[in-house]
Amino acid sequence: MPTLVDIAPAPAQVADLVAAGLVRAVEVMHAQLRTSVGEVEQLVRLAERYHGKMLRPAISMVSAIASGPLSGEVGPIDESDPRFHRVATIGAVIELIHLATLVHDDVLDHAEERRGGPSVNALKGNEQSVILGDYLLSKAFHLCARLDAEAGTRCAIRVGEITSTVCEGEILQLSHRGDAELTRDTYFNIIERKTAALIAVGCELGAVLSGAPQSVADALYRYGMNLGTAFQIQDDLLDLVGEERLVGKPLGRDLELGKLTLPLIHFLETGGSEAQAVLAQVRSGAELDAPARRRLVQRLEDCGSLDYARTMASDLVADARLAIEALPDSPARTYLLDLASAVIERAF
Amino acid sequence: MPTLVDIAPAPAQVADLVAAGLVRAVEVMHAQLRTSVGEVEQLVRLAERYHGKMLRPAISMVSAIASGPLSGEVGPIDESDPRFHRVATIGAVIELIHLATLVHDDVLDHAEERRGGPSVNALKGNEQSVILGDYLLSKAFHLCARLDAEAGTRCAIRVGEITSTVCEGEILQLSHRGDAELTRDTYFNIIERKTAALIAVGCELGAVLSGAPQSVADALYRYGMNLGTAFQIQDDLLDLVGEERLVGKPLGRDLELGKLTLPLIHFLETGGSEAQAVLAQVRSGAELDAPARRRLVQRLEDCGSLDYARTMASDLVADARLAIEALPDSPARTYLLDLASAVIERAF
Repeated sequence: MPTLVDIAPAPAQVADLVAAGLVRAVEVMHAQLRTSVGEVEQLVRLAERYHGKMLRPAISMVSAIASGPLSGEVGPIDESDPRFHRVATIGAVIELIHLATLVHDDVLDHAEERRGGPSVNALKGNEQSVILGDYLLSKAFHLCARLDAEAGTRCAIRVGEITSTVCEGEILQLSHRGDAELTRDTYFNIIERKTAALIAVGCELGAVLSGAPQSVADALYRYGMNLGTAFQIQDDLLDLVGEERLVGKPLGRDLELGKLTLPLIHFLETGGSEAQAVLAQVRSGAELDAPARRRLVQRLEDCGSLDYARTMASDLVADARLAIEALPDSPARTYLLDLASAVIERAF
Repeated sequence: MPTLVDIAPAPAQVADLVAAGLVRAVEVMHAQLRTSVGEVEQLVRLAERYHGKMLRPAISMVSAIASGPLSGEVGPIDESDPRFHRVATIGAVIELIHLATLVHDDVLDHAEERRGGPSVNALKGNEQSVILGDYLLSKAFHLCARLDAEAGTRCAIRVGEITSTVCEGEILQLSHRGDAELTRDTYFNIIERKTAALIAVGCELGAVLSGAPQSVADALYRYGMNLGTAFQIQDDLLDLVGEERLVGKPLGRDLELGKLTLPLIHFLETGGSEAQAVLAQVRSGAELDAPARRRLVQRLEDCGSLDYARTMASDLVADARLAIEALPDSPARTYLLDLASAVIERAF
């Protein structure tokens, strides 16, 4: 079976259609980013290097296929269906927004690397990166506004809403940098907004554009929220215990940037004076070398903090799977179930 | 006569309606920026201090009123007309986009002040400013997507298009910082995109939302492009010859940031070896103290470089006025004509 989006093998019936959808989404993105201004073209090329797993458009596409039979129309989506192009387009919109947030995140985090290469800010400076992010956002909204029909307006409203939510998550996170008293509630509030909401809206709009009823769109939104939250916890875990070679960026950055993640929050609640020392490090914003990170990871393991985070992620995956239980059995639904599980099994 | 938007006295019939439109636009903005996240609320408050002249929503509103009689509908817009709310909303959309660009511009320019107070980046850092700008952009697009009817979709498409154009202008400008060989063509390309396009689309969409035919919308777009370009040249002139107290921000910043503006481009073409020295300063990015600025301004005056820029701005104002010649005579049209003239007479 082909390994779609690099994280889970897809059933053949779904794989081909989703692969075609991703090809279409990339074509739509390229066309949307075409510009007559050479200086802009150069910069856009750098951002295009950022797109990796295409996880968001893929999940959106699978959601649409899984919703198709419930639409009251003729049946599941295929490549000749006009809904196919609309879903690929919403995938492109969401990927463009995701790229914009990556470009701006790298400015915020002073990141030098992304996907194993230099970041846009490392190559072109913060100024150009700020505007490049704005450009990608504008292009995303423009593309979304061009979706035809009533469903188009609905998509544009939801995409605008969710992008604001993503920014709220980022602002919350920035406001709590180095905050050793960060609560679990605030942590979840941050990651649900910052990461999960965009994935969730992709699932929801996949269903909407396939013509599914509201109840199906809602179920897929819940699926996406749970999956996205688990995805971010896994990202946070990988920043501690991952292999740099596989993750494709330097590890231990969360601590260096004063971002408290779930294992650390648990450790601070249970780890006593030793945890206070970690807290001091968080506050100082000092660099964390590899041996220090290994010692910390060992202590997190001993205190059950890593297992705590793993369990949380695993519970969320179970909730994601539960959310789409009522969808009729189909290869696409099976794949959504597999994708949810794969999100916390990945090493990259 | 009341001095609307601080730059030109408005005929009474127009003034009241436009003033009501601006009140409505501000209400719409406030409502759109309401959030349950306290950290976001705080940040948004800072951005709201940025809105000053409200020139863009005002011109958009006046454009709508001037277009009304041509719409084939009953006549000019009044406050009870549903078109009134739509036009105020598009004014709010455009002002939000403008605020977003100001917040990001201050990051790009390392500006410490804005409207006589500290900039958001000075108060909260670059990171929060980057995300605040993104938030304002998303909120603008969300508001635009919620405009009802077919005209709403058309507005969303145009606003997305033009915001991309604004970013292209910014990228062009950044790419040519310190470029002593900047041509007039590139200079105009930059300011038309960066400043004029957003004003122009406000005029155009004012006409569209008032129900005017395409030819009127096109005429108002041309009006806005010419007025906006003149507006930016005047801004560039004020950065050299303005009074800091009136302009509300430190002067001489363009040169410090390596931005070549029209008077400087003319000076470099005509000023020989002396101009080369200025060029060297542009390249070094050195600070320009007040006496140095005064000496430079004197030389620009002697070489006719200031007059050259003033004439260009004045020609553009004439073109702006010409663009709306075919509109039927009305107090709103008179006010548009006056506004165009006032743009290059202002000292702030």
